[in-house]
Amino acid sequence: ELFMLNYENLPLIYKREPDSHKGNFGHNVVIGGSKGKMGAPVMAAYASLMAGAGLTTCAIFEDYYYYLSRYPEVMAYIVQGKDFYTLNEVNAIVDFVQDKDVLTIGCGMGRNHQIKEFLAELIDKTDHFTVIDADGLFHLDEILLEKLRYRAVLTPHIGEFARLLGVSKDEVLKDRINLAKEFAIKYGVVLVLKSADTIIATPDGLLFVVSNGVPALAKGGSGDCLAGVIGGLIAQKYSLVDAAKIGCFVMNVTASLLMEEKNEKCIKTTEVIENLYRGFNKIEAYQ
Amino acid sequence: ELFMLNYENLPLIYKREPDSHKGNFGHNVVIGGSKGKMGAPVMAAYASLMAGAGLTTCAIFEDYYYYLSRYPEVMAYIVQGKDFYTLNEVNAIVDFVQDKDVLTIGCGMGRNHQIKEFLAELIDKTDHFTVIDADGLFHLDEILLEKLRYRAVLTPHIGEFARLLGVSKDEVLKDRINLAKEFAIKYGVVLVLKSADTIIATPDGLLFVVSNGVPALAKGGSGDCLAGVIGGLIAQKYSLVDAAKIGCFVMNVTASLLMEEKNEKCIKTTEVIENLYRGFNKIEAYQ
Amino acid sequence: ELFMLNYENLPLIYKREPDSHKGNFGHNVVIGGSKGKMGAPVMAAYASLMAGAGLTTCAIFEDYYYYLSRYPEVMAYIVQGKDFYTLNEVNAIVDFVQDKDVLTIGCGMGRNHQIKEFLAELIDKTDHFTVIDADGLFHLDEILLEKLRYRAVLTPHIGEFARLLGVSKDEVLKDRINLAKEFAIKYGVVLVLKSADTIIATPDGLLFVVSNGVPALAKGGSGDCLAGVIGGLIAQKYSLVDAAKIGCFVMNVTASLLMEEKNEKCIKTTEVIENLYRGFNKIEAYQ
Amino acid sequence: ELFMLNYENLPLIYKREPDSHKGNFGHNVVIGGSKGKMGAPVMAAYASLMAGAGLTTCAIFEDYYYYLSRYPEVMAYIVQGKDFYTLNEVNAIVDFVQDKDVLTIGCGMGRNHQIKEFLAELIDKTDHFTVIDADGLFHLDEILLEKLRYRAVLTPHIGEFARLLGVSKDEVLKDRINLAKEFAIKYGVVLVLKSADTIIATPDGLLFVVSNGVPALAKGGSGDCLAGVIGGLIAQKYSLVDAAKIGCFVMNVTASLLMEEKNEKCIKTTEVIENLYRGFNKIEAYQ
Repeated sequence: ELFMLNYENLPLIYKREPDSHKGNFGHNVVIGGSKGKMGAPVMAAYASLMAGAGLTTCAIFEDYYYYLSRYPEVMAYIVQGKDFYTLNEVNAIVDFVQDKDVLTIGCGMGRNHQIKEFLAELIDKTDHFTVIDADGLFHLDEILLEKLRYRAVLTPHIGEFARLLGVSKDEVLKDRINLAKEFAIKYGVVLVLKSADTIIATPDGLLFVVSNGVPALAKGGSGDCLAGVIGGLIAQKYSLVDAAKIGCFVMNVTASLLMEEKNEKCIKTTEVIENLYRGFNKIEAYQ
Repeated sequence: ELFMLNYENLPLIYKREPDSHKGNFGHNVVIGGSKGKMGAPVMAAYASLMAGAGLTTCAIFEDYYYYLSRYPEVMAYIVQGKDFYTLNEVNAIVDFVQDKDVLTIGCGMGRNHQIKEFLAELIDKTDHFTVIDADGLFHLDEILLEKLRYRAVLTPHIGEFARLLGVSKDEVLKDRINLAKEFAIKYGVVLVLKSADTIIATPDGLLFVVSNGVPALAKGGSGDCLAGVIGGLIAQKYSLVDAAKIGCFVMNVTASLLMEEKNEKCIKTTEVIENLYRGFNKIEAYQ
Repeated sequence: ELFMLNYENLPLIYKREPDSHKGNFGHNVVIGGSKGKMGAPVMAAYASLMAGAGLTTCAIFEDYYYYLSRYPEVMAYIVQGKDFYTLNEVNAIVDFVQDKDVLTIGCGMGRNHQIKEFLAELIDKTDHFTVIDADGLFHLDEILLEKLRYRAVLTPHIGEFARLLGVSKDEVLKDRINLAKEFAIKYGVVLVLKSADTIIATPDGLLFVVSNGVPALAKGGSGDCLAGVIGGLIAQKYSLVDAAKIGCFVMNVTASLLMEEKNEKCIKTTEVIENLYRGFNKIEAYQ
Repeated sequence: ELFMLNYENLPLIYKREPDSHKGNFGHNVVIGGSKGKMGAPVMAAYASLMAGAGLTTCAIFEDYYYYLSRYPEVMAYIVQGKDFYTLNEVNAIVDFVQDKDVLTIGCGMGRNHQIKEFLAELIDKTDHFTVIDADGLFHLDEILLEKLRYRAVLTPHIGEFARLLGVSKDEVLKDRINLAKEFAIKYGVVLVLKSADTIIATPDGLLFVVSNGVPALAKGGSGDCLAGVIGGLIAQKYSLVDAAKIGCFVMNVTASLLMEEKNEKCIKTTEVIENLYRGFNKIEAYQ
């Protein structure tokens, strides 16, 4: 029950109908960022846009709105706070996302207690498909995980997963596959356990591996990009599992292509995002 | 009286005289944007610039002026307000636009009542050629439409047109062609009814169709781009109808070219704008 | 005594010594901009950078500093004022520019009386090589022109030159060549009278023509670019006349190259600036 | 004991393991900038990112945070001050950098006494590998140099080195090699004495020369880039000497490649940074 993902067994990527319009491809809302970490949600939003979401909104603090100005295609939801999210902002955001399709939460979000309160309330008051990454994972507990059942993709790396489990990184490394499988089943989430061989575990106990890690992705920003791509795919109506599979795979393919042309050390996240089309093309050529 | 637009019957695109200067190609003023939606007017202004307007000014709220910094070629008219346009700003704007050629109104403008008041006054106190898109369309009523007679291009998608007519989307879809024709005749406007097969209806009852929708345009921002291109063409002294025809066609051609090279999911509006020259080249090669 | 400039008779473009450093290529300070017109000085500064100045500083109002963030290579001199220059800023600026090589003044500077006072004082208290463009030209009078003798390049288009002379545009057009020649001799300046056939007149009565106007330059921003290039060349120790000749010529060559590849309507100033190297290469290939 | 560096004797550039992650490539913190000089640290941080550091943080003043928005991959540490660093900021920064790997200090930092106090305290309270450039060098004295023993790379140009030694530029030029060697031995630092033939002197008395100066680098920003590259390489666990060697060499190779394609006058620092991968590729092809 452990499948190696490859070009032949990836989920089919939809061809768009000639008469499709932006409403057909969903609306992904990125909720992340905190003082000094605004690049993270911006990259996630940009990745969502370039992965094909019909609309992408990035929640952004009023004082840092300029961080989005490089990507005018991304819409903004202006948050009143400044340094980080607090309970004060939660009702307005819940209201705003009501008719949206996906929430991509956590990139650069920060780790203090007020942020946890915000996140808990946000998860409680929404029932959207949700991708949770980075600092968003830091705040998860049993109660929140329960509320995310059957609607979430979690994208921890080894260290973040160890913290989620309350064990050491070594313990995770000793038994990655079973720990991932058990976690996904127990909480009913799609777990993307990122490492050189990324493991995707599903609520029904299936395991998929995206092997052949790409050293070009060993750089800050890769995780934000992946979360944004998965969120953008879910907006386009891919299932959580399929979005996770395609998202991990397309990032690896894209970064590999860049690495061949450039140099494994010198590839930045926005370049990967700009070249996602090449990853998709290579995948689609096999289908 | 329904014409399919194609490379052969598009209006002739002017060649520039060797001794032409920026004054020959007009000045388009983009008036749009509101809190969190500044990307929309910025993209419209950028599209106007790249479609060849001699000068393009984007009205922009003082606090969000940085949103234009990526496009230093676009001039700014600084609006005192912050979150949205109100009556307070209207006289200064009317004054500013007096010697300009075209107004492109509505992208990202927002929908509250104060914006409507602003828009009503702006339309009342100007007699410019005017392109109205997006939230600008939301505010139109019989009185305003009357004031726009023989000087406006309206660019609704199906949903926006349904709202203009006060009917459901389904009712529009059942009889798009006749509804568009009647509306254009009744109000004396050029109506661009956007969908996979975009219909252009003229005040004298002609109908033109730009068929073969391009799925790459099914993404937030495409409408802003189209409004900007049409405004930029009117600035260059194309008639309202010709600007609408060329604008719709050149966007489709450009996006199709990009789609062949890239991937239908992964094309962003600013890329379409940067590649408008290729659409124009392809069209001009047939002329 | 009227020479058509061509590849064969352009001034020689220096080859850099292998052991040259940034100090060899001078420091150009761009002083311009006003509320809503910050793109103009930014483009001039970027053009100076790309024309080879060792250092380029752009004076910029504190609140609009972000306008430079796209070009981190350009240094900033932060001006305390906000909407436009006033006498309050002049002493600090005079102090700052003391050890710099060239001033490029006027792009987007605005036209009110306080700006005139600032400019008059700035010209009075400096003796730098100076390029004056756009709104800077608007403020010139006999007294200021006298102070600019033998150290200035003025870059008016026909309308700006008519205003300088206090005559109509038609009167200028009837006798461009003689008017330019007389003006340059009378005031001891290098006059660049921009039009399809740009005339360069020198203090000693020589006339040079850069013919073959490039319609791609008929767009807001071209003048800012030219002023920046000329300033950047003077910083590199070209004479005022040689800088004017090379500057006008390299812009035409560059824009012509772009026009062949792209489309005359769709070329923006920053693209011309980014491609200046191709214009230089083409010129240098003839030398 | 004076070695000319060439493709054959450069330190080996590591190949990344397939299972490497961002933690393997270290975290470089850039501390620089002051009012009007924010481009310098931003370019250093961007260079660090593109030279392969796993994470790069740029300390940046709150009011100028937007200067980083073009490079969302770079993280920010927000400094409370506004115009320059003071003692008020030092404890928080010391705290922040505690678990980071490298400090790259000085680019655009400014020269007043408060900055010196800040720098002295920062050096005193940290024991990181440290690259010191530009204004950072201005503040160094015997006491600070003592504290940097065996952990610093200093990157002065001739004028900055003369000031460090308290002698004239001419005196440095008369005896560059010995002065560099003595300085490096005396203070136990790696000294990168930049000029057309850059000299790298090590604490144990070795001397390496990177010859063949590249005129394209004779422009503001080159120094910031070099400091960032060296810092980024140290983050990846290259020794101070090896980072200095590779950093100087890769910049020259990259700029030479660009100069062949473009024009020696028209190359900007961010272009060099974007093309570092080509310099690395050319070097690695010899290994």
